[in-house]
Amino acid sequence: MERNIAISDSPSNFIATKEVTVIAPINIAIIKYWGKRDEDLVLPLNDSISVNINELYAKTRVRVGPQIEKDTVSINGKVVDLSKLNRFRRCFAEIRRMYRKRTMEDSEDNKKNFGCFDKFEVVSTTNFPTDAGLASSAAGFAAIAFAMGRLYNLSKDEIERIARLGSGSSCRSLLGGFVHWKAGTCADGSDCCCEVVAPTEHWSTLRAMILVTSNNSKDVGSTDGMRKSTQTSELLSHRVKEVVPKRVSRLLEAIKSRNFEDFATITMAESNQLHAICMDTMPPLRYMNKNSWHLLRIMEALNTSIGSKCVAYTFDAGPNCCLFFERDSMLRVLTALLKYCRLSTSLIDKVATSVAEEWLDLRNEVVALQDSITLEGVEQMEHVVEDVILSHVGAEPRVI
Amino acid sequence: MERNIAISDSPSNFIATKEVTVIAPINIAIIKYWGKRDEDLVLPLNDSISVNINELYAKTRVRVGPQIEKDTVSINGKVVDLSKLNRFRRCFAEIRRMYRKRTMEDSEDNKKNFGCFDKFEVVSTTNFPTDAGLASSAAGFAAIAFAMGRLYNLSKDEIERIARLGSGSSCRSLLGGFVHWKAGTCADGSDCCCEVVAPTEHWSTLRAMILVTSNNSKDVGSTDGMRKSTQTSELLSHRVKEVVPKRVSRLLEAIKSRNFEDFATITMAESNQLHAICMDTMPPLRYMNKNSWHLLRIMEALNTSIGSKCVAYTFDAGPNCCLFFERDSMLRVLTALLKYCRLSTSLIDKVATSVAEEWLDLRNEVVALQDSITLEGVEQMEHVVEDVILSHVGAEPRVI
Repeated sequence: MERNIAISDSPSNFIATKEVTVIAPINIAIIKYWGKRDEDLVLPLNDSISVNINELYAKTRVRVGPQIEKDTVSINGKVVDLSKLNRFRRCFAEIRRMYRKRTMEDSEDNKKNFGCFDKFEVVSTTNFPTDAGLASSAAGFAAIAFAMGRLYNLSKDEIERIARLGSGSSCRSLLGGFVHWKAGTCADGSDCCCEVVAPTEHWSTLRAMILVTSNNSKDVGSTDGMRKSTQTSELLSHRVKEVVPKRVSRLLEAIKSRNFEDFATITMAESNQLHAICMDTMPPLRYMNKNSWHLLRIMEALNTSIGSKCVAYTFDAGPNCCLFFERDSMLRVLTALLKYCRLSTSLIDKVATSVAEEWLDLRNEVVALQDSITLEGVEQMEHVVEDVILSHVGAEPRVI
Repeated sequence: MERNIAISDSPSNFIATKEVTVIAPINIAIIKYWGKRDEDLVLPLNDSISVNINELYAKTRVRVGPQIEKDTVSINGKVVDLSKLNRFRRCFAEIRRMYRKRTMEDSEDNKKNFGCFDKFEVVSTTNFPTDAGLASSAAGFAAIAFAMGRLYNLSKDEIERIARLGSGSSCRSLLGGFVHWKAGTCADGSDCCCEVVAPTEHWSTLRAMILVTSNNSKDVGSTDGMRKSTQTSELLSHRVKEVVPKRVSRLLEAIKSRNFEDFATITMAESNQLHAICMDTMPPLRYMNKNSWHLLRIMEALNTSIGSKCVAYTFDAGPNCCLFFERDSMLRVLTALLKYCRLSTSLIDKVATSVAEEWLDLRNEVVALQDSITLEGVEQMEHVVEDVILSHVGAEPRVI
């Protein structure tokens, strides 16, 4: 809800506070973002393409007004020490810079709108753990930028710029459906922007399933990681120049024509190449653990067993797995997970609840199918998956 | 010992049997070989450079003569099923082809020398397990090719060709010291050859230490693995064209000037890039396990803690680790292994025995040093290292 709150401590001293509460989803990159061409402006080395995951989101309230004494941010109830987190300071400074620029250039009307521009109070909650490598900062900064955009009537470019300064990939969470983040070439970042490839409803049968693995320790954050790769990987420049542009074209085509086989091929090749570049970094970065590899091997073997690609895996800079498949393949994927990861009954029931309209008796169907799936060379393992989140292609942020 | 054995079943039917027993070492690649430009001729996509490891070798006796009824190979007492192992058949066929060519072209003398050319009996033993990914096939085929060369007076090129047909990297075990295997560009492989970069004694202070890790399962053999990489990795061609040639030049210079810092930098970058290419393969190949990564992290942290590179790791297509360091760094490396891998007393004593002339009381020195080494971010783990083999730069194969 967007509100103007009138606080009048005296009739002669009318002070306006504005606030807005928004929701912004995480996004999962198919074409991966790894490496910046400009660290300060957070401009990427290459284009990336992502899918929004509605079911994992940040819900963020931003209040602004002169009676707020200082900038504050709290995430899931914890106050953030802004002196230690440069990314928040950079976002806030950029909003203020835009404000100053506008008040100097613009009409009296705009000045009035920006009259309450003083300090920020950001209160954010996520519906998932923020330290599990689930793109929480992407959702969080997209929410902040989107909220600020609403409060200050910012342009799409301005909102994207603010989001990027917080977390590069967060700009992809500002639009709905399949999003193409164009790296651009201008030094000032003016041609670095996002656009919708296809809206949410374009591929209604596509499903995303996030598998939270049991071991989520992350050695090196992605900001540090991609800096090290940019500095030391001898393969990264080739990826950026030669590999990504071709894959972008192929993926755009696959999305437009809803060609799952091509979509899956590119998705898995991109995931592998991200981790290849991490390996080619000095010292090498390792984000996938043995649980990640187990999930990858299951999905490979599942595809091999049916002779075509019914599922695609992708791993970001962390051990958690995101699967993509068409709705019709869900039973098969869940059955493989039940059999080869001993997926808990409660997690299957969790999925069942979210798809009740389609599968009335999902758990029994999955259990009954177990014997029909045999994956060569894959062992059964326990304690691989801690949580499952099922999603379709998600929408853009919204005010609530 | 090279012998001519006269077997006379009747005075009128004199049959000569020849035999020779040789030793050939394994070799560890610094510049890695991954991918073939010709599968049939076993011609590599790029140059590679290796170091021989004398302490791990194949000891092979080859007998030839008309009274041997059929080709046989035994490895460590087990008879090899030649119908299943194409690589042996290819070697043998090539020797016979060379023989036929020569008897048609050459003088009567040569024909006489090759008169006993009928069937082969190969008996090979290795002083290490053959299924542990320790380049046993490199040592084994180098031994066979070297032995055949002695028996049939083959040229260096012919011996290399035979070795390659068995196992590409085995041709590097045919020379001593630091060996440069040139990929060449001719379609027939005539310019694909090995040469000595520097002999064994050139860098007498350099040590190699093989750490056999506790989990040696190997998903995909290196022949299949590199075929898949050649077919699917989009980064491999860039590595071959742009990265390797520069690294070859730098490494040749580092070896010549005995510059350990440069040698270590290239060694580690090459190891990382091999595994990056494996990751960029579809489906991705994984050769390093958690023990491999633990050893890598220890060596990284050890280098960081002293502010320069005192040790270099390298991993081939398997989980075992090979370390390189100068003699003076051995105490430090062993101490780190004792502390962070709980290296067993028996393994330290094993190393101590092999360096008795240099360290009279190695075990106590290492134990005493433990508290002086603290590696940031590295946990102590158990059951990481199962065996340790210490070596200096090894020599070429020899007849025994």
